[in-house]
Amino acid sequence: MAEEEAEAGKLRRQLRTARMEAFSDGIFTMACTLLVIDLAVPSGSTHLLHAVAGQWPSYLGYLVSFATIGAIWLAHSVITEYLDHASLWLMRLNLILMLSVTYLPFPTRLLAEYIREGDSERVATTLYGLSLLMTTALLYLFWRYAVHAGLVRPDADEADVQILTRRLTPGLIAYVALIVLGLVVPVAAVVGYLAIALYYLVPLGRARRRRHDRRATSDVPGAR
Amino acid sequence: MAEEEAEAGKLRRQLRTARMEAFSDGIFTMACTLLVIDLAVPSGSTHLLHAVAGQWPSYLGYLVSFATIGAIWLAHSVITEYLDHASLWLMRLNLILMLSVTYLPFPTRLLAEYIREGDSERVATTLYGLSLLMTTALLYLFWRYAVHAGLVRPDADEADVQILTRRLTPGLIAYVALIVLGLVVPVAAVVGYLAIALYYLVPLGRARRRRHDRRATSDVPGAR
Amino acid sequence: MAEEEAEAGKLRRQLRTARMEAFSDGIFTMACTLLVIDLAVPSGSTHLLHAVAGQWPSYLGYLVSFATIGAIWLAHSVITEYLDHASLWLMRLNLILMLSVTYLPFPTRLLAEYIREGDSERVATTLYGLSLLMTTALLYLFWRYAVHAGLVRPDADEADVQILTRRLTPGLIAYVALIVLGLVVPVAAVVGYLAIALYYLVPLGRARRRRHDRRATSDVPGAR
Amino acid sequence: MAEEEAEAGKLRRQLRTARMEAFSDGIFTMACTLLVIDLAVPSGSTHLLHAVAGQWPSYLGYLVSFATIGAIWLAHSVITEYLDHASLWLMRLNLILMLSVTYLPFPTRLLAEYIREGDSERVATTLYGLSLLMTTALLYLFWRYAVHAGLVRPDADEADVQILTRRLTPGLIAYVALIVLGLVVPVAAVVGYLAIALYYLVPLGRARRRRHDRRATSDVPGAR
Repeated sequence: MAEEEAEAGKLRRQLRTARMEAFSDGIFTMACTLLVIDLAVPSGSTHLLHAVAGQWPSYLGYLVSFATIGAIWLAHSVITEYLDHASLWLMRLNLILMLSVTYLPFPTRLLAEYIREGDSERVATTLYGLSLLMTTALLYLFWRYAVHAGLVRPDADEADVQILTRRLTPGLIAYVALIVLGLVVPVAAVVGYLAIALYYLVPLGRARRRRHDRRATSDVPGAR
Repeated sequence: MAEEEAEAGKLRRQLRTARMEAFSDGIFTMACTLLVIDLAVPSGSTHLLHAVAGQWPSYLGYLVSFATIGAIWLAHSVITEYLDHASLWLMRLNLILMLSVTYLPFPTRLLAEYIREGDSERVATTLYGLSLLMTTALLYLFWRYAVHAGLVRPDADEADVQILTRRLTPGLIAYVALIVLGLVVPVAAVVGYLAIALYYLVPLGRARRRRHDRRATSDVPGAR
Repeated sequence: MAEEEAEAGKLRRQLRTARMEAFSDGIFTMACTLLVIDLAVPSGSTHLLHAVAGQWPSYLGYLVSFATIGAIWLAHSVITEYLDHASLWLMRLNLILMLSVTYLPFPTRLLAEYIREGDSERVATTLYGLSLLMTTALLYLFWRYAVHAGLVRPDADEADVQILTRRLTPGLIAYVALIVLGLVVPVAAVVGYLAIALYYLVPLGRARRRRHDRRATSDVPGAR
Repeated sequence: MAEEEAEAGKLRRQLRTARMEAFSDGIFTMACTLLVIDLAVPSGSTHLLHAVAGQWPSYLGYLVSFATIGAIWLAHSVITEYLDHASLWLMRLNLILMLSVTYLPFPTRLLAEYIREGDSERVATTLYGLSLLMTTALLYLFWRYAVHAGLVRPDADEADVQILTRRLTPGLIAYVALIVLGLVVPVAAVVGYLAIALYYLVPLGRARRRRHDRRATSDVPGAR
């Protein structure tokens, strides 16, 4: 009976995390692919190559936003791996995180449209930076909450949990610094945002690979 | 043989619910992300900040619709957790529910476009409210049908089932009241719709956490 | 060793079907949600209600296409339930089926745009009917191939397999008849397409519920 | 304890590959369905049939891109089947691969717009070919990395691994040849791109069916 209960409980737990992940993956992929809709085709151009090259701000925004969303997706999937199960508040935090992820294509469009337009350039870059900051801050909260609410799986390595927390912090400070820089040199800030995304894409890996190496050994007995 | 049969049967049952959930998650995420496509970039604006601020109705619609879809998604995933398996009629009800979820971005656009346009404002707000009411009513039917058709898993707590049913009811009444209010003070109605979404986002949680606490203890023996 | 092999084999088999289903569900949900993008918001209308009501062809197309895609999704998920595993040729047939599903929003737009435009009305209705016919024919081929290639799970009930095959046939004939009718009375044909979708949504259910009842009993021993 | 550890490890491993596959499938389906958005509805046409027929470049681009994305999806799902688990660098390579998949709808639009426009035709066809080449090259890297990093499941057949590698190579050379040809006869190059996609869709199948036959026998003991 107790086992049966537990069995059902485990199933439910997996389902619940599964739904949250499925919803999140859908949002992440949509946000990534919506970015390309905003790459406008130059109409009736006689020098197509120049016309396409002239769209570099759109490409830059596309690249930065894709890299950022990709980095957040990667961190999100690392975090959910550490989760033993979800809680309702975690799902709400996740919904707010997803709200800000779905919003990203809009400031990206603003940036692509106004990056060479004097004052508007500052506004667009700042709004863009604030959106990235908000999204990353929500990801940070998402992870911190999971840790404090004890949703992390018991067998998770304490060191990894701390590495993950430490990795997420500097990005927030960097975003604030770049938002300020963006008021003076907008393009530099945008390039900086790309750097942060790449920074996020890499170190998480280190934390993760370490886990994987350890597991690789600890798994030997049960390795399929 | 009987076990083998049952095994295959269980697998099929999971697959079927899985397909319904995958399809629903796809619809939910699409509906959420389509909302941002409708945030138009002000073209060639010299005061971008004012131009963007002037789009507040679009942001309001985006927020209310996202919160509503998020709340419905959360309720939907709570409901499917209670399901032992799906039935064909449940899948049909789900298809109709999804039809009305995919429709939401349209009244949202209407609202954003006409919220400051005299009579049209009333029409847009009313159509918007009716769409939200319809979607929530279909969710209510979806859950009621699942209960009556005996699709709820045997180990589900009767109290939870009743809590869920009770939680879904008041929202319907509130929507009707707000639709009427919307004929007089449209914006107030829209704010009210946001309140309902938040109301749905929270109490379901209470019902759910209670289950979780109980399970947390009952699971101890079989905890992963 | 043999068991281990089999275990891995089973896992691979599930994964493969899983990918095909995930891809298909993504296509189905996208096709459904793209339909709503084409519901244009009447711009600067003073009689919004009339303007919205005047869009009935868009709503009709939206409804018929959603119902058809929903019916095909339902049939597709019934079919994949009968599958023991996928084969590469089945995945190719599935890709072609998905190609025609993703195409549906286009003739739907044509229909909405031209349904009241004399000769163009006939063209739009015919193209629309041909697209629906093609999609259903491909679904029929998908199922027939699966049966002939012996991909159906051994424990599937022969009677169900035949019911499913029989159910898919009449729709094809009905589409041909309606396409011809559409050359004379376009709107009548469109209503007929809706009827076919509803016809598909129901009988598959009967075939399926029967299976479920049987299983429900046969499962008793292993019912979780 | 060790078993428990291993169990958890195995679960995590599946989850991780699952997230990468879910994200990829989302990108693939989005890229496929975005293609149809670009099939513009001829506005207010009196000879709709001619107007629609005149859009053949859009259809050609739609078909070639869908076939290419479909072929890459099929290869991607074959590859992930061979994977025992993912590594962080594999997920990064996958993100870059997905970046180039999401980009494909843009050169497809360029092609549809400019295929009959003199010099611009050459530019559009070349950009299109380069995008297809880049995507296929990234898929090749993705697979090569997986093999070298030892992520392929131990029970994978060495012969299959080599077949898969060999199959992916000629396509790259063919793309380079067609890009050059495209500078002279653009349309011929586009038709060639379709041929490559079909070439990819088929031989992978041969490699794969062989595996399947073998498994079919080796599975007998544990079949379903």
